[in-house]
Amino acid sequence: MIHPLNAHSHQSVTLGEIARLLDAELIGNAMLLVSRIASIQEAREGDLTFLSNPHYRNQLLTCGASAVIVGKDDRDCTNLVRLVVPDPYSAFRQVALFFSPLLPVKAGISPQAFVHQTAHIEPDVQIDAFAYIGKDAVIASGTRIEAFAAIGDDAKVGKDSRIGPHTLIGHSCILGDRAMIFGGAIIGGDGFGLAPENGEWKKIPQTGRVVIGCDVEIGANTTIDRGTLGDTVIGDGVKLDNLIQVGHNVIIGNHTAIAGCVGIAGSTKIGSHCTIGGAAMIHGHIEICDKVQISAATAITKSIAKPGIYTSLMPFSEHEAWRRNAVKLRHLDLMSEKIKELEQKLLALERKNQ
Amino acid sequence: MIHPLNAHSHQSVTLGEIARLLDAELIGNAMLLVSRIASIQEAREGDLTFLSNPHYRNQLLTCGASAVIVGKDDRDCTNLVRLVVPDPYSAFRQVALFFSPLLPVKAGISPQAFVHQTAHIEPDVQIDAFAYIGKDAVIASGTRIEAFAAIGDDAKVGKDSRIGPHTLIGHSCILGDRAMIFGGAIIGGDGFGLAPENGEWKKIPQTGRVVIGCDVEIGANTTIDRGTLGDTVIGDGVKLDNLIQVGHNVIIGNHTAIAGCVGIAGSTKIGSHCTIGGAAMIHGHIEICDKVQISAATAITKSIAKPGIYTSLMPFSEHEAWRRNAVKLRHLDLMSEKIKELEQKLLALERKNQ
Amino acid sequence: MIHPLNAHSHQSVTLGEIARLLDAELIGNAMLLVSRIASIQEAREGDLTFLSNPHYRNQLLTCGASAVIVGKDDRDCTNLVRLVVPDPYSAFRQVALFFSPLLPVKAGISPQAFVHQTAHIEPDVQIDAFAYIGKDAVIASGTRIEAFAAIGDDAKVGKDSRIGPHTLIGHSCILGDRAMIFGGAIIGGDGFGLAPENGEWKKIPQTGRVVIGCDVEIGANTTIDRGTLGDTVIGDGVKLDNLIQVGHNVIIGNHTAIAGCVGIAGSTKIGSHCTIGGAAMIHGHIEICDKVQISAATAITKSIAKPGIYTSLMPFSEHEAWRRNAVKLRHLDLMSEKIKELEQKLLALERKNQ
Repeated sequence: MIHPLNAHSHQSVTLGEIARLLDAELIGNAMLLVSRIASIQEAREGDLTFLSNPHYRNQLLTCGASAVIVGKDDRDCTNLVRLVVPDPYSAFRQVALFFSPLLPVKAGISPQAFVHQTAHIEPDVQIDAFAYIGKDAVIASGTRIEAFAAIGDDAKVGKDSRIGPHTLIGHSCILGDRAMIFGGAIIGGDGFGLAPENGEWKKIPQTGRVVIGCDVEIGANTTIDRGTLGDTVIGDGVKLDNLIQVGHNVIIGNHTAIAGCVGIAGSTKIGSHCTIGGAAMIHGHIEICDKVQISAATAITKSIAKPGIYTSLMPFSEHEAWRRNAVKLRHLDLMSEKIKELEQKLLALERKNQ
Repeated sequence: MIHPLNAHSHQSVTLGEIARLLDAELIGNAMLLVSRIASIQEAREGDLTFLSNPHYRNQLLTCGASAVIVGKDDRDCTNLVRLVVPDPYSAFRQVALFFSPLLPVKAGISPQAFVHQTAHIEPDVQIDAFAYIGKDAVIASGTRIEAFAAIGDDAKVGKDSRIGPHTLIGHSCILGDRAMIFGGAIIGGDGFGLAPENGEWKKIPQTGRVVIGCDVEIGANTTIDRGTLGDTVIGDGVKLDNLIQVGHNVIIGNHTAIAGCVGIAGSTKIGSHCTIGGAAMIHGHIEICDKVQISAATAITKSIAKPGIYTSLMPFSEHEAWRRNAVKLRHLDLMSEKIKELEQKLLALERKNQ
Repeated sequence: MIHPLNAHSHQSVTLGEIARLLDAELIGNAMLLVSRIASIQEAREGDLTFLSNPHYRNQLLTCGASAVIVGKDDRDCTNLVRLVVPDPYSAFRQVALFFSPLLPVKAGISPQAFVHQTAHIEPDVQIDAFAYIGKDAVIASGTRIEAFAAIGDDAKVGKDSRIGPHTLIGHSCILGDRAMIFGGAIIGGDGFGLAPENGEWKKIPQTGRVVIGCDVEIGANTTIDRGTLGDTVIGDGVKLDNLIQVGHNVIIGNHTAIAGCVGIAGSTKIGSHCTIGGAAMIHGHIEICDKVQISAATAITKSIAKPGIYTSLMPFSEHEAWRRNAVKLRHLDLMSEKIKELEQKLLALERKNQ
């Protein structure tokens, strides 16, 4: 999965083995071989598929798969060889992981890597060609640093992590165990700290770090700035998609997931177990409590103290309809005034008519 | 054009040669030398300019160019030496290409590159210093791989392609012929596939590929995720600008062009011959038919089955005017209720007055 | 600050020295040692803190700092050892810079770098492992080129600049003095110039440059395209945050600051001393005058000729309230019509009742 440069080889297994893996009831031939998990739409002979969304039940009738994972309610909805489990989606995840496990790390440092003599590298670490490891950096056991990854001075990367190509882990930053950092992610660039002086912008040194918990994923070309004073902090189990901007001194709580193209301005604190939809924008210096869901394309401009779903998306329409409505949008205040005026006039008239 | 690291040298040519190239009528000295094409605003002696927008016709009077390309209607609007053609913009494109052709590839593999011994590299391919080519990767004829580009195991790059610096073509991904991949583009990172289990996010292995057609351009720092099961597919002639996010299992039809900062969430299908404006956001799991135009800064939240222009942009205004209208935006529902109430009261009054 | 790969070592200084640096009045022990500047919330023994926002005055009472920088009005609001200055925020900036100065450059070219034999490198320049310097490129005195940075042919980098990891300075582009280019920034990729011909997109060669003034900062993974004809121009003192897209032939005036995730489409001209909030989107071919402030998440679709603040942000609310209002948003035109109708009917009724 995380090794963007290395492919998996596929092997065939019997359905009996998979039934044991999933602790599933097997209806049909236990010796049948499958070599891949595939969607109902794409599965062909030799594939195992799964039905987790009842919406696709009819498509099972024409599906070319050799076997299917179904829930208990769908036990008899097909004649295919089938594995019956309580949660087909979770079973799909397990089987997918079985077919495509995290590639093992091959211990060793490429002669084409740059590793500072003072760096502390555990013996079972893999460091690829064109990786760069700075002074006093620490790379824990079981971790792989891929081509074109740069680990700054004093930075620490936790155990069993995968640091993808073209990434930067800036000096003094800390990554927990099992980190997955995808291509082009830049962690620990300077925050955007400027003071206006005589019509010019003067840079404020950014002296903090980025401190990242365990089991965190950071998507391709995402950027996380170091703190100005103090740290930018990403909690355990946080999942960040691609092209996200996390400003200096932001704090993101445990197990929060954020979709692509989101921007989070500096010094904002986001709670645990939140989800933020794609292209949302979060202002700086605000606080969002735990268990908040922010919809895609939504701008959050002030703190949120109550769990729930929050939205500011402008609905789309055909351009001409939009144009007619957009003109009115600029005059809502006037419309509101007119309504008040009408209410008063009508009241006057009603009184007169009594 | 695509070689971000190498400059062109400029040469002078006679207008007679350019007239032949364009099959244009030449009015004036065929031996006049020009060495560059420039805009009407910037052109000076030795430059050839062009008039494609009638808006700029007056600026021709003071333009410093040595010669100009004009349409048939503008044949006599200037005293400059001129080339008369049916479509001046297309002629401009041809001349620009003539002055700045795609740089030829210099066959050879830099000793400072990393090329896996099993990779299949055609003899006329150029591989620059600090390029990385993985196991069993295939690089077709006439292609150049620039510094800091990484081609994963089993990946295939088509003929006459240009793979720019700091790019990733992830393992098993496929690029068609004449691909142009700009700096920092990450193709084939993992999709953002997560299953919630007991309040934590569990990663779903991303086992698909990215499959890209011929004549595709992918802009700087754009990211395209590999499919979960099955592939993410980019059609022939698709043009993607910078900083675009394409989610897992997205399908983009032939000859669709997408401007910068757009996000497309997973499993969405976009038709052929569509255009998507900058900073638009497209939800996941929807379908957009052929020949749809989506305006800039527009959020598309459901499928579109009819060609046309679609928009959801919120119009801007001076901050104070915006503030007054924005307050009302939160109470549109109430305004609508009041209008209904007024209608009823007015109706009652009208009846009374009959 | 700008060296993402190298850490600072911290040293202790006496408050007396800092008082001299700031030209401050010192109340308390001049021999007291401090080794760090920290926020009021995080400061502990050995730290110097500062009070610039009166909002935090109460927190000084429980603050663990050894000393504090205060303004003249707050001279007596604490018993801590204190430095009294006219502008505590500016003093904070000076002290932060004192503790974390720009790391000195170590002259020398790494044997693991690629430097073209025709490149002109001043003797005191630092070029790190895995840096790439193209043909005829010029690197001025006091500048550092970090790992994985690529400087194209004929490009020029000014004095005392810091070119961060994974950056591209494309061929022929020009950077002024004291440039700070953060990780992954791509400067001088092709503009998105396409001409439609027979239902396909034909590429227009992008032959211009990117020309950048002095004292410019460019954030992580930001992209700036080269001009089509003529140049893309970034003025002196401009500060760009992360993940910004600047299209071809854009001109940005001096001392303008732009926050993260902003997109600026091609050929737009932005004035001097402007500020643009995060995730704003600016259309192409428009002109924005000096001293304009654009709010976050705002789309600017036409030229602005008057200084001021401009906004188009859609306010957020709880999802259900949003849903009710959003339905009405699609029918604003109708609401407006109904109001007009009501006005007319009411007028008729009033006349009848006179």
